[in-house]
Amino acid sequence: MKLSDIGEFGLIERLVRQTAAESPALVVGPGDDAAVWRAGGELVIATTDTMVDGVHFRSENGRWRDLGWKALAVNLSDIAAMGGRPTYSLVTVCLPADLGVAAVDDLYAGLMECAGEYGVIVAGGDVVRSPVASITVAMLGAGAEHDGEPTLLLRSGAKPGDVIAVTGTLGDSAGGLRPLAEGVGLEDALVRRHVRPTPRVAEGRAAVAAGLRCGIDVSDGLLQDLGHVCEMSGVAAVVRARNVPISDELRAGYPAEALEMACTGGEDYELLMVGPKDKIDSLPVTVIGEIVDGAGVKLADDKGSEIAFERTGWDAFRA
Amino acid sequence: MKLSDIGEFGLIERLVRQTAAESPALVVGPGDDAAVWRAGGELVIATTDTMVDGVHFRSENGRWRDLGWKALAVNLSDIAAMGGRPTYSLVTVCLPADLGVAAVDDLYAGLMECAGEYGVIVAGGDVVRSPVASITVAMLGAGAEHDGEPTLLLRSGAKPGDVIAVTGTLGDSAGGLRPLAEGVGLEDALVRRHVRPTPRVAEGRAAVAAGLRCGIDVSDGLLQDLGHVCEMSGVAAVVRARNVPISDELRAGYPAEALEMACTGGEDYELLMVGPKDKIDSLPVTVIGEIVDGAGVKLADDKGSEIAFERTGWDAFRA
Repeated sequence: MKLSDIGEFGLIERLVRQTAAESPALVVGPGDDAAVWRAGGELVIATTDTMVDGVHFRSENGRWRDLGWKALAVNLSDIAAMGGRPTYSLVTVCLPADLGVAAVDDLYAGLMECAGEYGVIVAGGDVVRSPVASITVAMLGAGAEHDGEPTLLLRSGAKPGDVIAVTGTLGDSAGGLRPLAEGVGLEDALVRRHVRPTPRVAEGRAAVAAGLRCGIDVSDGLLQDLGHVCEMSGVAAVVRARNVPISDELRAGYPAEALEMACTGGEDYELLMVGPKDKIDSLPVTVIGEIVDGAGVKLADDKGSEIAFERTGWDAFRA
Repeated sequence: MKLSDIGEFGLIERLVRQTAAESPALVVGPGDDAAVWRAGGELVIATTDTMVDGVHFRSENGRWRDLGWKALAVNLSDIAAMGGRPTYSLVTVCLPADLGVAAVDDLYAGLMECAGEYGVIVAGGDVVRSPVASITVAMLGAGAEHDGEPTLLLRSGAKPGDVIAVTGTLGDSAGGLRPLAEGVGLEDALVRRHVRPTPRVAEGRAAVAAGLRCGIDVSDGLLQDLGHVCEMSGVAAVVRARNVPISDELRAGYPAEALEMACTGGEDYELLMVGPKDKIDSLPVTVIGEIVDGAGVKLADDKGSEIAFERTGWDAFRA
C-alpha cells in the first residue's frame, strides 16, 4: 500500500494514531491547525509547514522573495487559525549546492519582511543541501486563557445552530495560478493573493476575543477544510453558494468557474469561523452557512439543491 | 556566486547577519547549537535539523526505523549541547507519493522510540509530498537559571586556561558508514553508532550543574566543531592527538585512519565541553586539550608538532 492509496488525510489519521499516547500531555494534540501545551504558566501554540520546489512553488520563476514571505505567512495562518499571537520561528532551508547566493538573500529578505510585518522573531534554523529546494518554518505562538480555560479556535468546537463565516474572499489564490504561470507579477491582484497571502492573525484574535471557540484556516479548499471541522465536531454543515464571498477580479477572470474555485481552491489562507450568530455578527466576516445535525458538508443553491464538484480540495498525495 | 562557492559556514554567516536585528529579543540568537529566549518566566531552547535522502541517509537501504530514531536524536543532541532538557517536538516528513505506507509506520516507530527514551512529546508536524524524502524535526527544550542568570553551554564561553573534554569516543559514526553500505546491521558497533546515535542529554545537564558554560556537540567533526568554539570565543585550542578517545572497534577496523576519523568524522553526537579543569574533572569525560590565546585549532602529536588533515570536517555545500 502506497501513500497515494491512502492520501494525505489517511496518512495524517495514521500518524495521529501512532502519536496518540502523547495527547494527555498536550492541551491540543496532533490533528488541529497547531499543537498547544502549557509551559511556564503560558499556553504555547506550535505549528510547522513546508513548501517544496515543484509541489508548492516553482523555483524556475525566480520569485524567491515571495517564497520567503509565503513560507512564513502560511505558518502564521495556522497560528491565526487557533486564535493565537505569533512569537518565535525557526527556518530550515534545503537548497541545491549550485543555487545562486542571491536567491537565498532574496528568500530571507521576504521572510524577514513578513516577520517584521507580523512581529515574529526569526530565532534560528538550519541550512541543508538537497537536490530539491524546500523551506520549512516552525512557528510558535501564545494563546490566551480566560478563568484558567484556554480560549482557542479548535476544529472540534462546532455545534448545531452555529453559523459559519469566513474572512475576505475565496478562490483568488487559485485564480492567480494561471497568470503567474504566464509571467504576470504582483501588479495582478490574483497573483498577489497567491504569492503574498495575508495571514489573518488579527482576525483570529478578534474571533477569540468575541467569544468564538471554533475555526480553521482555508488552506486546502473551503469545502474540504470545513469538512475537517464537521468531522472533528461530529456535525454537518450547509453552505449557501450565493453567500460565498468572491472578488470582482475572480469573477471577471473566471466567469464560469469562480464559484468552484472559491469552494475548492487552496491557499487562500482566509479564516473560517464557526459560532453563535450574535458573536459572529460583531466581526468583519461574511456568513456563508450554518451547522446542523448529521455528517458532511453540503453546498446548496438558492433552491436548497446540492451543488457538487469533482473534488472538494487539495490532497498532497493524490494530487 | 553559488552556495558551493561560499560553503555552509559562509551561508550561515550571511543569514546570521540578515537576521541579526532579531538578536536583542533573544537570550541566544542564530549561530549557536540552538536559539534561546524567555517566555512565561522560563528559558526556552529551540533547534531544528533536517535529514535529506541521498545526502544524510539512503532510503534504498530501507532503514526507516533507524532514520526516525536518528532524526529525533540529532535534534536532542543540539538541546544537549546547550545543557538543556528536551520537552516538545514537531516532525515534518516530506515523502514521495509512491512510498509504501509501511516505511512511514517504521519511521514513526523509530521516532516514537527515541522520543519515549528521552521523555520528549511529539506534539504535531506536517506531511508533505516531495520527489525527495526528507525529515525535519523542530525541538524545544528548557534551560536552567541560577540567580536569574541563564546556565547554558555556549560556543562563546571558552577562556584561555580552560581545558577541553569530550564524552564517549569519536570517529565511530564515520567508521560505521562502510559496513552500513555493505549491508551490515545493528549487530556491528560502528554501524550502531552511525544509525542510532546517543544524544548526550544527561551529560549536557551534568556539565551545566557542574558549573560549565561552554559546549558544542560534535556533529561535523571534532576539529571543525572546536573551531566554531574558538571563533566565537576569540581563542585558540590545542588538542593532544594521543588523548583523543578512540574505540577498540574503530582502531581494529581502521588501524591507519582511526585518528583522522576521530578528529574529522561527523555525526558522532558526542559533547565537547570547555571549562576550568577542576569542574571538568568531576564529569565522566576525557580531557583532550586546552584553550590558549590566539586563533585556530592545533592538533599536536607527542612532541608538540602539528598534525594536519586534508579537511577538518563536513561542509554541506562543499561535500
